[in-house]
Amino acid sequence: MTTVVTSGIDLLATAVEDQAVPVGRVDWRPPMPGTAADLATVATDPLRSEANRRALEAFLGVTARLVDVAPAAEVLGLERGQFLHAGPPITWDRASGPLRGGLMAAAAFEGLVDDPEDAPALFESGSFTLDPCHHHHAVGPMAGVVSPSMWMFVLEDAASGRRTFCSLNEGLGKVLRYGAYDDTVLTRLRWMRDVLGPTLQRAARATAGETDVTGILTQMLQMGDEAHNRNRAGTLMLLRDLSPALATSGVDAADLAEVFRFVGGNDHFFLNLAMPACKLALDAARDIPGSTMVVAMARNGTDFGIQVSGTGDEWFTGPAQVPEGLFLGDYGPDDANPDIGDSAITETAGIGGFAMATAPAIVRLVGGSVPDALAATRRMHEITLGENPRWSIPVLEFQGVPTGIDVTRVCRTGILPQINTGMAGKVAGTGQVGAGLVTPPAEVFPAALARLAELARGRGDHL
Amino acid sequence: MTTVVTSGIDLLATAVEDQAVPVGRVDWRPPMPGTAADLATVATDPLRSEANRRALEAFLGVTARLVDVAPAAEVLGLERGQFLHAGPPITWDRASGPLRGGLMAAAAFEGLVDDPEDAPALFESGSFTLDPCHHHHAVGPMAGVVSPSMWMFVLEDAASGRRTFCSLNEGLGKVLRYGAYDDTVLTRLRWMRDVLGPTLQRAARATAGETDVTGILTQMLQMGDEAHNRNRAGTLMLLRDLSPALATSGVDAADLAEVFRFVGGNDHFFLNLAMPACKLALDAARDIPGSTMVVAMARNGTDFGIQVSGTGDEWFTGPAQVPEGLFLGDYGPDDANPDIGDSAITETAGIGGFAMATAPAIVRLVGGSVPDALAATRRMHEITLGENPRWSIPVLEFQGVPTGIDVTRVCRTGILPQINTGMAGKVAGTGQVGAGLVTPPAEVFPAALARLAELARGRGDHL
Repeated sequence: MTTVVTSGIDLLATAVEDQAVPVGRVDWRPPMPGTAADLATVATDPLRSEANRRALEAFLGVTARLVDVAPAAEVLGLERGQFLHAGPPITWDRASGPLRGGLMAAAAFEGLVDDPEDAPALFESGSFTLDPCHHHHAVGPMAGVVSPSMWMFVLEDAASGRRTFCSLNEGLGKVLRYGAYDDTVLTRLRWMRDVLGPTLQRAARATAGETDVTGILTQMLQMGDEAHNRNRAGTLMLLRDLSPALATSGVDAADLAEVFRFVGGNDHFFLNLAMPACKLALDAARDIPGSTMVVAMARNGTDFGIQVSGTGDEWFTGPAQVPEGLFLGDYGPDDANPDIGDSAITETAGIGGFAMATAPAIVRLVGGSVPDALAATRRMHEITLGENPRWSIPVLEFQGVPTGIDVTRVCRTGILPQINTGMAGKVAGTGQVGAGLVTPPAEVFPAALARLAELARGRGDHL
Repeated sequence: MTTVVTSGIDLLATAVEDQAVPVGRVDWRPPMPGTAADLATVATDPLRSEANRRALEAFLGVTARLVDVAPAAEVLGLERGQFLHAGPPITWDRASGPLRGGLMAAAAFEGLVDDPEDAPALFESGSFTLDPCHHHHAVGPMAGVVSPSMWMFVLEDAASGRRTFCSLNEGLGKVLRYGAYDDTVLTRLRWMRDVLGPTLQRAARATAGETDVTGILTQMLQMGDEAHNRNRAGTLMLLRDLSPALATSGVDAADLAEVFRFVGGNDHFFLNLAMPACKLALDAARDIPGSTMVVAMARNGTDFGIQVSGTGDEWFTGPAQVPEGLFLGDYGPDDANPDIGDSAITETAGIGGFAMATAPAIVRLVGGSVPDALAATRRMHEITLGENPRWSIPVLEFQGVPTGIDVTRVCRTGILPQINTGMAGKVAGTGQVGAGLVTPPAEVFPAALARLAELARGRGDHL
């Protein structure tokens, strides 16, 4: 074994030599402009340290299990004409193309209009209501549109009984969540409503509580998935866990085969379980006075918003950025909509862009290199409260993923959270145009810090 | 993106600093003792360079697809009383405990004896015949015992029509291939014969040619599997590929559920497809005069043997070594049998121990560290003819796996092929006792080199 170890050093040394740069490390960075006073206040808040410890502990204590699959009307109480969407609150007049496209598809899917093109007038006139997924214990990728007839995964933390929800993933290409609304989109949604949802419900109920989504995430991180842009192993493990119950579900064999084909052919299917699992864990860290831990990052295609444990349900928002990355076919940067979707809940929970080191295969998709991937994860440790012992990265010698984004660390270092994301076309109806990397608008963190400082000052003798 | 790249360098530099050693590289090693003259002869063989190019090209040109699952009696023509085994040829009197145990289980499974304990007398008396799997286009893990009633995976390379075969994987613990033969072993083998085999046959025939085993191996290497001791992603992808056909197979729902549960619960199931896929590719490189490429490494629990392209079907053998690694429960090194099984066909094809870098999770199982894993793969590039563009390792910036073990490079550097392996108990009936790392006995390479030199001299004006 000794000679093998020696060669290991050789490999790493060569990698550095190949990059022909001196060895060094930057230990100090200037804080974000204008944050010095608030940083001093929050740093001396007597609640902060214990509050963050509790927030991280609460997060790490959650195990998300799949307990049901059921229509949104039933599990969220959504009524005809009510729609949920990704990100912080927004109105139709400020909604971007892909969000509008997703809402148009959903309106047609619900039978509120015959032609999706007739929907905008009804949204403009205020006939329908819009509300964020996050306000209903739910999350949705990209446009994140949920309507009453859509089927939802239901995840539960047995210890607390808390639940979170997410719709079923449609696959790639022209799909509602990327803002497409043509007939292929609606036909697929109807099949998902009539066949996929009811079939998965039977399997989920037959196995209730046996499918450990948090545990599958542990395994995925050992299998090249970062659980945001790559969910291949997770999807396969979901199929494995449900397949015996699917076999005995009594569903027509041809329909069952189609369910296997659809799920097995969509490497992103598990994203819609990873996201609510992350939300379930992060929700446990909410509402702890003094905690500077970020509990949600979400985008509606216009605004990027964060929520912080110590500041309750308040959103701190700024303009969503356009990702940098690679484009499909002839699309280019001018075709891309600003960042959209609740899927940054994965990064908020320490995976996705935070776990890039474990998914070198994904860096090509988003336009980076393998060293970029390793470095991205290392950088995120500089702005997080701790590591997750259940979610570790083999190639980093099984170090836990960076967990619990700390508003104070972000403001003090200027390092912004790294997000992997798909890119939607900015024109409603387009669909996906690419995938890339993006960060939040920097200003949301000083805004959250200011509010934390204000609350700390309100509690006592502070700077 | 720029700052991310900078941190990437930081990471690698830190890894070197942490190991506190000077940066350096060893470029020269002494050749194996006594090989100088033969190395000179083979190095100047005018056939060698082109022969090795052809051998590697033939290997790389093979695509293995699953075309059938059928009993060994049918596809190999095995008759009652005939048994195949792993490794080079051996007789009962020299067979180790786990090989004897596997043969005893198979004799009882075939109904040749009622009690496995009655089988040794019949093997001793010469009532049964033994033959290597490799002499029948087959491979078998560990004991590698095949008897007529066992069902076999049938893989085919469509371009050449060549086929290879392997039995179905039983799972871990007390199983025939580790030399166990109690009632649980026989009960499982009967269920595999009566339910698993026929069910997989229906799915394999319904999807004939659609399951691309070579392509699944490509994906596995991006998902933490090295395809010898870790086959989790491969097993999941096999299930995915077969599940639609399984759903419409007409098999009783309860049996189908049990098939899903058995395969999904056995992360090693795909090993028995990885192995014949490797053999199918390596067989294409056989029998090329002058080629110094190893086309088989196999162990019967007593002898370790290699076959080389330029030397036909001749085995070069030496004593199998006892692996070093980790032991299950209370077992220790004294309980371990020497190296056994045809599974080193994976390393011969550039995966398994040669692809350790892509499977850091496996290094803990075999007692190593993450740098060991990276280093093992890099070392194997020093003794191989080339890289496999279809099987690449993400964390090594998508470098192809080291492919085509070159007898001359092994003799010139003294670097032995690195093999990952399970360890069987040396007493028949024990089962698995651990997992670890092992190498071939060094002397098989000079022996093969001497024969290559002899053949080269026979062809013309050589040293």
